[in-house]
Amino acid sequence: MADQYEVSETGAGTLAIPSLRWEEFPESPAVVLLDQTRLPAEEVELVCTDVPALVQAIQTLAVRGAPLLGIAGAYGVALAAVRGFDVEEAAEALASARPTAVNLGYGVRRAVTAYRRAAAGGDGAEAAAAALAEARAVHAEDVEASARMAQHGLDLLGELLPGGGHRILTHCNTGALVSGGEGTALAVALAAHRAGELRRLWVDETRPLLQGARLTAYEAARAGMAYTVLADGAAGSLFAAGEVDAVLIGADRIAADGAVANKIGSYPLAVLARHHRVPFVVVAPTSTVDLETKEGAAIEVEQRPGKEVTEFSLPHIQGGGVVGGTGIPVAPLGALAYNPAFDVTPAELVTAIVTEAGVVSPVTRERLADVCSVSRWRKSRSGNGMMAE
Amino acid sequence: MADQYEVSETGAGTLAIPSLRWEEFPESPAVVLLDQTRLPAEEVELVCTDVPALVQAIQTLAVRGAPLLGIAGAYGVALAAVRGFDVEEAAEALASARPTAVNLGYGVRRAVTAYRRAAAGGDGAEAAAAALAEARAVHAEDVEASARMAQHGLDLLGELLPGGGHRILTHCNTGALVSGGEGTALAVALAAHRAGELRRLWVDETRPLLQGARLTAYEAARAGMAYTVLADGAAGSLFAAGEVDAVLIGADRIAADGAVANKIGSYPLAVLARHHRVPFVVVAPTSTVDLETKEGAAIEVEQRPGKEVTEFSLPHIQGGGVVGGTGIPVAPLGALAYNPAFDVTPAELVTAIVTEAGVVSPVTRERLADVCSVSRWRKSRSGNGMMAE
Repeated sequence: MADQYEVSETGAGTLAIPSLRWEEFPESPAVVLLDQTRLPAEEVELVCTDVPALVQAIQTLAVRGAPLLGIAGAYGVALAAVRGFDVEEAAEALASARPTAVNLGYGVRRAVTAYRRAAAGGDGAEAAAAALAEARAVHAEDVEASARMAQHGLDLLGELLPGGGHRILTHCNTGALVSGGEGTALAVALAAHRAGELRRLWVDETRPLLQGARLTAYEAARAGMAYTVLADGAAGSLFAAGEVDAVLIGADRIAADGAVANKIGSYPLAVLARHHRVPFVVVAPTSTVDLETKEGAAIEVEQRPGKEVTEFSLPHIQGGGVVGGTGIPVAPLGALAYNPAFDVTPAELVTAIVTEAGVVSPVTRERLADVCSVSRWRKSRSGNGMMAE
Repeated sequence: MADQYEVSETGAGTLAIPSLRWEEFPESPAVVLLDQTRLPAEEVELVCTDVPALVQAIQTLAVRGAPLLGIAGAYGVALAAVRGFDVEEAAEALASARPTAVNLGYGVRRAVTAYRRAAAGGDGAEAAAAALAEARAVHAEDVEASARMAQHGLDLLGELLPGGGHRILTHCNTGALVSGGEGTALAVALAAHRAGELRRLWVDETRPLLQGARLTAYEAARAGMAYTVLADGAAGSLFAAGEVDAVLIGADRIAADGAVANKIGSYPLAVLARHHRVPFVVVAPTSTVDLETKEGAAIEVEQRPGKEVTEFSLPHIQGGGVVGGTGIPVAPLGALAYNPAFDVTPAELVTAIVTEAGVVSPVTRERLADVCSVSRWRKSRSGNGMMAE
């Protein structure tokens, strides 16, 4: 794609590269992304100067993770506005790039609403500036939300596991790569690490796309955490051996009844945690809560291509002998695969939901709505232009 | 290794190749194996003309699966005897090639006992012939055991799921590739398929070595079964959606208390099955039951190299651009991995154990011992030289 190009960063020693940023290049503004499909082998940035390029980056999972998708969606709207493209069309393309992630639609709506309000005055440049300002606000709020979730989560771990020395199991990827800040569940683990309270981070590899092995392990290694990767199916014997003190995961969408849609493989962990009486804690900003979705059963789950399961593919890896984008078959030709991106964990299996506005525990429809209304009230008071969804 | 060489079978249309056979080549007798590490891409036979070659094949999983390992172990002893090598040393090397699989030691002991008894008469050739005859008996018994398990299992499914149209979830690989016959759990699914009672076979891919995606899918495709592969973590949402009527798995070792050691990832299925009130059925010959191991906690679980998790490797695949034996890293360099080969499911989560001698349900220490004693009595009556273990 002409408007999506790459910048290689070789030998970068620290993760100075943010996972996403707005950049004003002389030739064009751009949304610059760390291409997550290439991690951990390479740190390569994708420069998206138009919305189709950004949509493609979202769909190929070059940029992913609920909070970061919200930021990407908001900047995408700003990009269309600043460059003078059709903003409504861009917003629709962005919001529908992936169906399950509520944050994506949330970020898009925030920027579009700001744009429309300013555009009503008739000045296109002012409307574009308003969209960009709103995207920056979404970004800044996410940084702050990460810090608040980390603190609330750390406090909760202290209450649930008073002995310290936590052994925490996590799934998929929920750190700096999914966020403007330090993330959701991994931000809590990182806070525990900094407080000297983390004995071991168990990292589910998270098939089929291996976000745990590739991305969470990368973040954990950079942060100097004691971590161990495992096949998803090996979590059961860790629970049985008493080696897991708590499960910490993120969320892609939380329904009004407290049901949590998260990366496929999360629900089995919730069932195992219940069977072994281990706390199962979800860490997610209130922007992940979708009060319009009344219950877990109503959450639309994205079905992804079967090839993600039946072929092994690191899309862009270089130097490993794999031709870019070509998968190696690991099942017979023609094999069907069942490949939902997410599963849904009912509220009764969730010990607590940690948000930037506080901890919801036990998880009930009423308590969840309360935390969301507190959060929304605060935002509207602070002038961030939060709109009713 | 000089004494292990390969025979390629290209374009073979049907699985006429047995997974293991004894062959009297003019230059040497040999144990001929279908190299399972190359499936499904290629059907290649490994010809093992000495015990070190066979031990290597066992350790690299070129030959695998509990019943087949028993047959391999018995033929391995015969191979040493016929070729005039030290039989006791060979037996020890074979029995310790993999720690968890009880059948391996069982097959080795059967052949060694027959050898010793005949060798007491002083005639080496006669002793070698006795070892080979015993190995052939172990092999023939396994063929018969498969057929009996398939029938008992089919009857049990009929009782548990009277409506027919079974949707069966399985894990790892338990068909013709692990057996002298049609296998264990997959033999039951195959019987249901032939009886028109199988609506869908759900095939866990079975990380880290993908025996489900590679081998079970291969067997299911050859048999014309309606099958679908899934990432192990996706099983949870199938249960939640009511898409699983029963779980059928094999076993690598069953303790006297009915605890079942099987491929890593089996225990989480047992917990999910219990949570969703779905039958969890283990299919295994009585030779898998180890009455000397009093309880599940005493089962030694093999820890395999972390690279199986942190690198992607199809050891011998050709034409896919991957250099033989070189893994592609999927986690940061230096990442630790937890990689047990098996987990242990306690008897209280097992609905039934289907053996060649009958079905054990509910699974109790007493009922399990009864079925084993019936089986042993039958074998000693039929003159198969069954020894007390």
